[in-house]
Amino acid sequence: MRLLNYLRIMIRVVILGGGNVAYHLTNKFLKNSIVNVVQVYNRSLDKIIHLKSKVLITCSLNELKEADIYIIAVSDDAIANISSKIKFKDKLVVHTSGSTTMEDLESKSRKGVFYLLHTFSKEREVDFSNIPVCIEASHKKDMVLLEKLAKSISNNLYYIDSNQRKYLHIAAVFVNNFVNHLYHIGNGICEQNNIPFEILKPIIQETAAKIISLQPIDAQTGPAIRNDSDTIEKHTTMLTQNQQEIYTLLTKSIYQTYGKKL
Amino acid sequence: MRLLNYLRIMIRVVILGGGNVAYHLTNKFLKNSIVNVVQVYNRSLDKIIHLKSKVLITCSLNELKEADIYIIAVSDDAIANISSKIKFKDKLVVHTSGSTTMEDLESKSRKGVFYLLHTFSKEREVDFSNIPVCIEASHKKDMVLLEKLAKSISNNLYYIDSNQRKYLHIAAVFVNNFVNHLYHIGNGICEQNNIPFEILKPIIQETAAKIISLQPIDAQTGPAIRNDSDTIEKHTTMLTQNQQEIYTLLTKSIYQTYGKKL
Repeated sequence: MRLLNYLRIMIRVVILGGGNVAYHLTNKFLKNSIVNVVQVYNRSLDKIIHLKSKVLITCSLNELKEADIYIIAVSDDAIANISSKIKFKDKLVVHTSGSTTMEDLESKSRKGVFYLLHTFSKEREVDFSNIPVCIEASHKKDMVLLEKLAKSISNNLYYIDSNQRKYLHIAAVFVNNFVNHLYHIGNGICEQNNIPFEILKPIIQETAAKIISLQPIDAQTGPAIRNDSDTIEKHTTMLTQNQQEIYTLLTKSIYQTYGKKL
Repeated sequence: MRLLNYLRIMIRVVILGGGNVAYHLTNKFLKNSIVNVVQVYNRSLDKIIHLKSKVLITCSLNELKEADIYIIAVSDDAIANISSKIKFKDKLVVHTSGSTTMEDLESKSRKGVFYLLHTFSKEREVDFSNIPVCIEASHKKDMVLLEKLAKSISNNLYYIDSNQRKYLHIAAVFVNNFVNHLYHIGNGICEQNNIPFEILKPIIQETAAKIISLQPIDAQTGPAIRNDSDTIEKHTTMLTQNQQEIYTLLTKSIYQTYGKKL
C-alpha cells in the first residue's frame, strides 16, 4: 500500500529523443526516486536500444504511454511536428530547447519548457547538481510540477521566459561553442609547432575560474587591452588566413570595448 | 656559519618591473627559501613602494645591486632598452615575455627567458604550483639555474625555445584573451535581457573542464556543428553588428573545421 502511494506521487515522464540531452536526462531520471520514467521514444530504436533492460522503449508515436510530463528532447526543427502527435489531453508537454519558444509546441495539451543550460557530450559524465535548469509553463500549476522535476536533479533553478531564453541560448553559444572552438584553434597552433596542448590547460582553467570572482571586463589581459600594436602586428603575420581573420576581429572588438580606457 | 652557507646557495635575483607579472613574481619569491630577492627596480617608485619594508627598491638602473639573475618583467617594447643598461658581466639576464625572442635582450651578459604562461591580475591571488614555467637559456649551465628557479615556485616546467614560445603566446591569446572577451560578450547579452550572468558560470566552468579529458575537436556542441541553419539565422538577427560579425566568422570557422563531417 505504501509502495502504491509512493508510486502515485512520483512524476511519470516520457522522454522523446535519442540525442545527448535525452541520453543524459534519461540516465539521470532512471536513478531518481522522484521521477518514474515510463517510456523512452526515438524515431529509430538503435539510439535507445541500450535502455531496453531498464525502461520501455518505442519508435512509434502511436504507442506512447500515459504520463504526467512528455519531455521532447529532439532537434529544434522536429519539436513542432513531434509535439503535435502527442494525443493525450491535459498533460504537460515540454521541450528542452534554448532557441525554441514555448508556443512553438503544437500540442493541444499544457505547454512548458525544461531547458538545461549545459554542454552535453555522450563521452562525458554529467554532474547535474549545479546545472541551471530554466523552466517556463503556460499554466501556473505546471510551474510547481516543473520545479519539483528540476529540483530532483539540480540545485540551480531559474525562471526564464521564451524571450529571455533565446538570448540566454545565444550567450551560451558565445561562452561555450565559440570558446571551445578557440580552444581548438589554440590546440592546432600548438600541434603545428610541436608544443604539447597540455601546456595550455592550466591557463584555460584559470581563465574560466577567474570570472567566478572578477567581472570578465576586469579580468581581460593581453596585447589588445595593453594596446601593444607591435605584438599584434607580429602575431597577424604568423597565422593562417582563417586564424588571422578571427584574431583581427576579436582584437578590434577588445579595442572597442576598452576604447575609453586606452 | 650555517646561515652564511645557506644564503650562499640561495639564488639572488633582482626583479625589474612594476606590472602584474613583476608584482606576483616578487610576492612569490619573497616567501621562498630558495630565492633571495636582492632588489626590485621600477622606473617610477609608486608601483613598488608597497615593497619598501620587505626589499630594497630603486627607480635608478645605475643603482642596481649584484645578483645571480636579473628578471626583466616589463612591457615588451622596453625589454631591449632596459636589458642594455644592466652593466654587470657574466650574470644571467632573462625576460618574462611570450612574444619576445631571447636574442632581443641587449645585455652583454648571459641571456635567458623565464616565461610564465598565465593571466595575471593584481586583484586575484595566484596559485603558482601548476603554472607552466617555460625556460630557455643561451648557456647550458644557466638552464640548471633556471630549472632551480622554476621548481622553487611551480611543478610544471617546460623547455620552450624562442620560436615555439611566440606561437605558444599566440595560442594563449586565443584560449585566454579572446575567450575572456567572449565571456564579456555573453555577460553583455545577459545584462541587456535581465538575465543574471551567474547562470552562465556553470557552463563556462564545464567548457574548460571538458577539454581536460576530451580533445576540443570532440567536445564541440551547438548549432554550428549540428548544421542547424534555422537557429543560426535567427541568432544573427538578434545581435548587435559587432556581435553579429563575431558570430558569423566563428560559425563559419566551425563549419570549415567539421566540413567533412557535416
